[in-house]
Amino acid sequence: MAERACMSTSPAVRSIPCRHDRHYDIITCVEAFDLRNKSLACMGASDRRLVVIDKNIMAQADRIHSYFAHHNITADIFPIEAGEGNKSLEGLTRVLERFDAFSLCRREEPVIAVGGGVLTDLVGFAAAIYRRGVPHIKIPTTLMGYIDAAIGIKCGVNFNDGKNRLGAFEPPLAVFLDPSFLKTLPQRHILNGLAEIIKLAIVCDDRLFLHLEKDGMNSARNKFQDSAGLSILDNAIDAMLSELSPNLYENNLARAADFGHTFSLAYEMAVDSRLLHGEAVLIDIILSTFLARNRGCLTTRDAERILALINSFSYVLSPLPLISEGEIWESLCERACHRGGRQHLPLPCGIGRHIFTEDVTPKDIGTTIIEANDWISRHIKFEAQRESLRKAG
Amino acid sequence: MAERACMSTSPAVRSIPCRHDRHYDIITCVEAFDLRNKSLACMGASDRRLVVIDKNIMAQADRIHSYFAHHNITADIFPIEAGEGNKSLEGLTRVLERFDAFSLCRREEPVIAVGGGVLTDLVGFAAAIYRRGVPHIKIPTTLMGYIDAAIGIKCGVNFNDGKNRLGAFEPPLAVFLDPSFLKTLPQRHILNGLAEIIKLAIVCDDRLFLHLEKDGMNSARNKFQDSAGLSILDNAIDAMLSELSPNLYENNLARAADFGHTFSLAYEMAVDSRLLHGEAVLIDIILSTFLARNRGCLTTRDAERILALINSFSYVLSPLPLISEGEIWESLCERACHRGGRQHLPLPCGIGRHIFTEDVTPKDIGTTIIEANDWISRHIKFEAQRESLRKAG
Repeated sequence: MAERACMSTSPAVRSIPCRHDRHYDIITCVEAFDLRNKSLACMGASDRRLVVIDKNIMAQADRIHSYFAHHNITADIFPIEAGEGNKSLEGLTRVLERFDAFSLCRREEPVIAVGGGVLTDLVGFAAAIYRRGVPHIKIPTTLMGYIDAAIGIKCGVNFNDGKNRLGAFEPPLAVFLDPSFLKTLPQRHILNGLAEIIKLAIVCDDRLFLHLEKDGMNSARNKFQDSAGLSILDNAIDAMLSELSPNLYENNLARAADFGHTFSLAYEMAVDSRLLHGEAVLIDIILSTFLARNRGCLTTRDAERILALINSFSYVLSPLPLISEGEIWESLCERACHRGGRQHLPLPCGIGRHIFTEDVTPKDIGTTIIEANDWISRHIKFEAQRESLRKAG
Repeated sequence: MAERACMSTSPAVRSIPCRHDRHYDIITCVEAFDLRNKSLACMGASDRRLVVIDKNIMAQADRIHSYFAHHNITADIFPIEAGEGNKSLEGLTRVLERFDAFSLCRREEPVIAVGGGVLTDLVGFAAAIYRRGVPHIKIPTTLMGYIDAAIGIKCGVNFNDGKNRLGAFEPPLAVFLDPSFLKTLPQRHILNGLAEIIKLAIVCDDRLFLHLEKDGMNSARNKFQDSAGLSILDNAIDAMLSELSPNLYENNLARAADFGHTFSLAYEMAVDSRLLHGEAVLIDIILSTFLARNRGCLTTRDAERILALINSFSYVLSPLPLISEGEIWESLCERACHRGGRQHLPLPCGIGRHIFTEDVTPKDIGTTIIEANDWISRHIKFEAQRESLRKAG
């Protein structure tokens, strides 16, 4: 046993600490590409930037060029289709190929991502893995990005029908919040992002809930451009960050921010789904509200208050994909796999409060879905109606 | 300016700290899959494991099955081709698809990677991005893995002809160092890993250098199975960790461990290259030694000592790809891009010591390469000769 004798002179276990210390700034500004906004241009050290933008905002390309030119920087603008279908390994590869064609350097040329949640998720993930990480800056142009996708550190793409199955936790260098982008956003996308605000209000922030009851409807109509609307956005961001920042790397897998993000997967990832992410979240919120009430953790009165709030926004959705009870149950099982083997299902137990449940059964789902579907069919408008309204109007 | 007035009530900048605190254990053991080694089986909480192994060690599959079965765990063994050509986005996708087919859970089922540096780099990267990170355990079976690839946190794949162009810093859950795997390793792969030990000795550790001068030749011949060989491995690991651990995430881009990893890229990534990674590193070490001597930072005597040490191992290489001066220069430029815009080229300035140079010119390269090539042609054997030796013997 010469080996053993020798090995005993070496440490049997070397313990290696790995601490990765970073931080990022979320900067609220009136207009990110206003020539006077130096803070964006001064991040980075080279005289060129790669700017990935959503094709939908190509109208802004000249303004972006002018902004960087004013600061002696050449902007190379790369427009991409940023629908959910492009949030894939193929979409990721196209972004990485563009990084490579640009000969993107490792530290001094932050990639700038201007777009909605799909785009910032995609570009953030590309930045996370290119050269094992290059800096990136997020500028959300949708409400979903503004109050959710862009302010956290999660990024990723779908894979094999799995939502965000591949991804990373990648802090951006900075996030610029410019509410002027919301001015031209279609109302559907305003309501899409609003679902995440409603989610936070229900499980985390009764003040935000009151805020929405009071000013939500008008603010949504005004695309959050008035002072009440901006105040709701601010409130929502603070609520989101209170939830996210102590648990950025999800060491704790019981997360209140997962409210609305369990059963939603079944609706969002269905082959024939035409729902936006926030719309699927909304359906989940409704289902979860009935579930919480049926389990006795939420009073009927609070459940009614939640449903009344949702109702006040007059959502109009694409027809829902036909989802069976079994598929709803499977989405919970898949999430349990993602949450370390336990359901960790956040449910409201009052306005602005939540508990985590671990013992939901298929039978609970069965009862709940009948009631939820009934409520949805009576209170949510569907696209066919929107079409006829449009024709009539 | 109602907007401005409103926005002034919100914080203009929210600064979000992101600290990711982890650690991993490097465990030296006599045999990782010895039934008595509980420490491997007890990492994880479920009764199944996905074990990705190099096809070259399929002979070990039964032993791995038995080991886990003994601990009431079902091992699902996934053998992969783990040559450099498989270290690609396509190779990565195949591993990720297997993770998905296994329905790999997020925290309780560490993926176990058993193989050389290519395999642990590939599986480590897949683990880094699947569900934004699942735990993995590395068990190196080659010398390159044992003293280099497996003990750090870097993983990745090649992309668009760029070496490790995509990847992550992903701490494993643990690394099991089992030198018995080296027993059956072909001599070429022993010498391949040895190049990384030589590298460390030259720029970081004069004690290791002496160790190699004294026992290196015999130890390499004995595949590091005797006590002197095991002691060299231990010394090399300590030297490597001293370099790596204060800078795991490469906040400092001037890294001594990059010695031998600049010009090597030109040799390794050439279309017609048949060199292993360590062999390309060896060529770079020779080139860098001449460069250091020519620049006056290394004495002729120390340069000769370095070259004599290399010579003592009787390397036999595949014919080198034809690399022009321009391509050598380009590899330095590419590395400068990776090192934040500066050359940060580590060069030896004595045995076990280094400096970083920032001002190497194409002319320096031109002079050096002629001398280095001359030395290589006189001292390194090439495969055609190996073939004829084999035929003669």
